Amino acid sequence: MTVRLDGKPVAEAIDRETRTVLAAERTGAPAPSLVSLHRGVPSPFRMYLRRQARAAAALGIAFREESLAPSDGPTELVARVRSLDRDPSVHGVLLEHPLPPPYDFLRAVDELRPSKDVDGVGTRNLGRLVAQRPVQVPAVARAAFAIAQHYRLPLDGERVVVLGRSETVGLPLALLLAERPPGGNATVTVVHSKTRDLRAALAGAATVFSCVGQPGLLHRGNVPQGTHVVDVGLASVPDPERPGSLRAAGDADPEALEGWAGSLTPVPGGVGPVTVAELMSNVARAWRTLVRGEEAA
Amino acid sequence: MTVRLDGKPVAEAIDRETRTVLAAERTGAPAPSLVSLHRGVPSPFRMYLRRQARAAAALGIAFREESLAPSDGPTELVARVRSLDRDPSVHGVLLEHPLPPPYDFLRAVDELRPSKDVDGVGTRNLGRLVAQRPVQVPAVARAAFAIAQHYRLPLDGERVVVLGRSETVGLPLALLLAERPPGGNATVTVVHSKTRDLRAALAGAATVFSCVGQPGLLHRGNVPQGTHVVDVGLASVPDPERPGSLRAAGDADPEALEGWAGSLTPVPGGVGPVTVAELMSNVARAWRTLVRGEEAA
Repeated sequence: MTVRLDGKPVAEAIDRETRTVLAAERTGAPAPSLVSLHRGVPSPFRMYLRRQARAAAALGIAFREESLAPSDGPTELVARVRSLDRDPSVHGVLLEHPLPPPYDFLRAVDELRPSKDVDGVGTRNLGRLVAQRPVQVPAVARAAFAIAQHYRLPLDGERVVVLGRSETVGLPLALLLAERPPGGNATVTVVHSKTRDLRAALAGAATVFSCVGQPGLLHRGNVPQGTHVVDVGLASVPDPERPGSLRAAGDADPEALEGWAGSLTPVPGGVGPVTVAELMSNVARAWRTLVRGEEAA
Repeated sequence: MTVRLDGKPVAEAIDRETRTVLAAERTGAPAPSLVSLHRGVPSPFRMYLRRQARAAAALGIAFREESLAPSDGPTELVARVRSLDRDPSVHGVLLEHPLPPPYDFLRAVDELRPSKDVDGVGTRNLGRLVAQRPVQVPAVARAAFAIAQHYRLPLDGERVVVLGRSETVGLPLALLLAERPPGGNATVTVVHSKTRDLRAALAGAATVFSCVGQPGLLHRGNVPQGTHVVDVGLASVPDPERPGSLRAAGDADPEALEGWAGSLTPVPGGVGPVTVAELMSNVARAWRTLVRGEEAA
């Protein structure tokens, strides 16, 4: 039987820690605050906003959305992010990504000091991750890693595969898994669209993290029997039970892997809720750093 | 027969390109200049200095060594690096590493703007590498990659193993090999001291890059037959031909791999000379960037 790796208890454990961080510094400190900045047009990022708002409210974190004006170009975006960085009442900033041209996401997010870049996707946060002295790590990478740790999936010294090499998900997760403790200490292979033989690349993997966004990618034909699967992929597919509407799907085919994989995170209900919890945990740590005046260089 | 992958022609090709970069901007521009800052005590880094001086002289790059005073602590080191960053007559700075405590190498090297950090080991350069928008990439990682490209070793879509996960060599090289073109587009596995089964991790690898510094690590018992080996390791071992003196050795046992590996870089004469050439290439690009006033944020 394939064990279902539910995200909820993992998210709850992270939230408990976040509450402790927030409670420890409350006296006299400004309320922790998170701002999400986006283009104001429909996107997967905006769907994620509602969950951010709910999670922030539950933890006592002030949450505000800001949207760009339709006439705002790359220069205005950079100026907006810079002004949020300088605003002492704001402790975390999340910027919609990916952003289409002519916006330069990296240029804009790099206006944030590392602690305020609560999704850990700016140049300095990515660099600190490589240097094994992380400040903020992308919430989704932390979430996938937290699930694996919570359920004690094999990582330390084991062969682990990460599917996907994006700079915001696959590569940060691979670094986190490969690094010395508190990293995963795993032997990590990064697999991507140009990998010649997916099945061969997955052979011998104890745990697989899939971050592609391609429903049905993982099935009995390429996942070794008994392998644990953390499904970080997220896509929308037609819902067979409600014609005309969509439902969320991961990279794994859960029916095909049932009774074959050692364990599997569900989509929805797996990595998703843990990502929101890790984001709030990043906000709480940013807030503590800023309140204490401990920002790193 | 195992092909010997000589570094010399690769270094010469890089030097030709460097001369072109340097020649294109000469008129009215200040002479390109590299400063190497070290503790002034014997170390592997200081042995590398002589080769830097020779290579710089051959290319018309001014080269200067600076050493810390014995009383200089971490604060003085940071101040020295900051002052080199601000000196407009200096275009590249190399800082000895690793540095023993209480020095904080990363803290010090992060005083350099990204282009002047010609060894590409500062936070912003490592972050830009993850973001696939590199400014300066560690010379040794570029060198290993350049050798593989020059000799057309299998990378694109192929299984490649990097041994070693240091932030200055193994991880940057793994990122360079895994990323989209002009990266290596390879399926990369990072193997390290905690990898449970080295032989299994190397099975199926078309090309192996070893960055450990452990002579004899790679032999017929763990390298698959026909695999190409780029030996980035560097250690000193007793020289059997000159009792009482030392010679350089890589991670591979060249006698054991002769007639077994598909190809192998020699040590010395493989990655070493190419690393010096890549370092000078980084200095030339830093100089061009600074002369043109094009420094990235």
